[in-house]
Amino acid sequence: MKRDHGGNLDWAVGQYGGTKEDWIDLSTGINRVPYPVPAISPAAWSALPTASATATLIDAARVAFNTSGAVLPLAGAQAAIQLMPLLSAPGTAKIMSPTYNEHAAALRALGWQVVEAATAEETAGADLAVVVNPNNPDGRHYEPTALLALLPKVGRLVVDESFGDPYPANSLAPQAGRDGLVVLRSFGKFYGLAGMRLGFALGNEADIATLSQLAGPWPVCGPALELGALALADKAWATATIARLLAEIPRMDELAAEAGWNVVGGTCLFRLYDTPNAQDAQAKLAHAHIWSRIFPYSDRWIRLGMPGNAAEWARLAAALRG
Amino acid sequence: MKRDHGGNLDWAVGQYGGTKEDWIDLSTGINRVPYPVPAISPAAWSALPTASATATLIDAARVAFNTSGAVLPLAGAQAAIQLMPLLSAPGTAKIMSPTYNEHAAALRALGWQVVEAATAEETAGADLAVVVNPNNPDGRHYEPTALLALLPKVGRLVVDESFGDPYPANSLAPQAGRDGLVVLRSFGKFYGLAGMRLGFALGNEADIATLSQLAGPWPVCGPALELGALALADKAWATATIARLLAEIPRMDELAAEAGWNVVGGTCLFRLYDTPNAQDAQAKLAHAHIWSRIFPYSDRWIRLGMPGNAAEWARLAAALRG
Repeated sequence: MKRDHGGNLDWAVGQYGGTKEDWIDLSTGINRVPYPVPAISPAAWSALPTASATATLIDAARVAFNTSGAVLPLAGAQAAIQLMPLLSAPGTAKIMSPTYNEHAAALRALGWQVVEAATAEETAGADLAVVVNPNNPDGRHYEPTALLALLPKVGRLVVDESFGDPYPANSLAPQAGRDGLVVLRSFGKFYGLAGMRLGFALGNEADIATLSQLAGPWPVCGPALELGALALADKAWATATIARLLAEIPRMDELAAEAGWNVVGGTCLFRLYDTPNAQDAQAKLAHAHIWSRIFPYSDRWIRLGMPGNAAEWARLAAALRG
Repeated sequence: MKRDHGGNLDWAVGQYGGTKEDWIDLSTGINRVPYPVPAISPAAWSALPTASATATLIDAARVAFNTSGAVLPLAGAQAAIQLMPLLSAPGTAKIMSPTYNEHAAALRALGWQVVEAATAEETAGADLAVVVNPNNPDGRHYEPTALLALLPKVGRLVVDESFGDPYPANSLAPQAGRDGLVVLRSFGKFYGLAGMRLGFALGNEADIATLSQLAGPWPVCGPALELGALALADKAWATATIARLLAEIPRMDELAAEAGWNVVGGTCLFRLYDTPNAQDAQAKLAHAHIWSRIFPYSDRWIRLGMPGNAAEWARLAAALRG
């Protein structure tokens, strides 16, 4: 079964023409101003990833995420999502919905019964609860106290903070290490390097040891270990990037308002709008070779990532007005 | 539980001194003359791996492996090994042994009963049979007819051809697509780019679809998709590399014979020798900052990968004589 994702720019090019380079892909929440890729050492490509390279990355992640929990680097938050169903025997999973659809898909594929919950609180009683915080696509967020209150009411709580980098005050990473809590982090979205495949699972020693065994040795490529450690240690870049993204929210929402769209929610990496007709809205942008995200469960919602530079902002503004 | 591998050069450096750069790491069978890393496109780092980049890699793999079976790129043959236990309900797995220890570890971790088999034929009757061909570390190999005869006698046959690139006549890849057969290929070993994390599972449509769902979207990083497609299409490089490696076998075996070691077997990517005392043999080389592989189940065997250039050959010769 082919699942629905952002990032299917190939399809858009086939449908609306142009070359991939012509398009502005706003169909994901991936930062379009990526962390600059440095020269990668030859050994990162040629040798098996070393224990010391992994330890360096983990140390950088501990500081960046402000956690003293155990940290497992994986090939993207997606790789962590694939492992969650194996952390305990299948039972009932409750997922705060609508949200990123891979949680349900991965759990169902390995025998879990999946129930959609309208709020984080409604996941109470689940063997496994999943809360994406801030949520994708609507940006709903929970403060740490609310999720900590949920923790004793579920068998295990998975908090997916894939879009959490700009909102450290809402992160449960500092609490990772508590029994029953697993926090997932993405590297590729905020750092704009989704092709690199890097993400993290944070949790107590026992859960992380189990996940590490399930992932096997060398789950992350050498270049990602090297680049990830560098980027996560670069506080100045992160601070400047958060400031830029937060400042762009009003600009984006104003453009949308001019087009007659209403803000549903979002984060500073993506915005979700309510439109009279999502397919029409997507088509209008697609004719200008700007790709967006709509959802199988809504005929009104459209999600847009943030443009990456002045030219992209101008093209988006023109397309929305046109 | 920490499992025993080659590639633990960190440990050797801690024990015997020097810096990693001083050492010649022959503890793995990874080709020390890697495929040249080209410039990687910015999009390979920044964007989610695209369906078209994956399709290009799969096409290159089909030609390189001479298979018409379904092909799934994964983050190393290791990633495929981690998924084999999930392809069907746990039962009895028989593994031709001794061999690469991750097969047994991955199967046991997910509830399989693992039995060691002395030969490929002795895996008959297993729900899942694993044959590494050519075998690591002893180089035992089976011709396709022998393994095809085994196929109807087991529930599923996994043939791990991680070291199979130089021996295409022995490959079962052309037979991948037959029910019950899964063939695993490594990219990193023969192409000398183990840090890149690329490997393949080859099989029938149903098995590969199941594995793809278990792996999730984007299991391989963008740079690996790009570089892998380029390298697998480069027949001239592969042909020259096979010729070089095959020609180096006698040279290596002569050096070992001068040291009083007897050939047990191997491939052109690694050689296995019987010594009076494996630990002494490893220590002798380690004092010259050459790292080798010994095995928890043998006090006599030492495995050496092939040196990468004239200077490395000279240092190995001197260390063996010294």
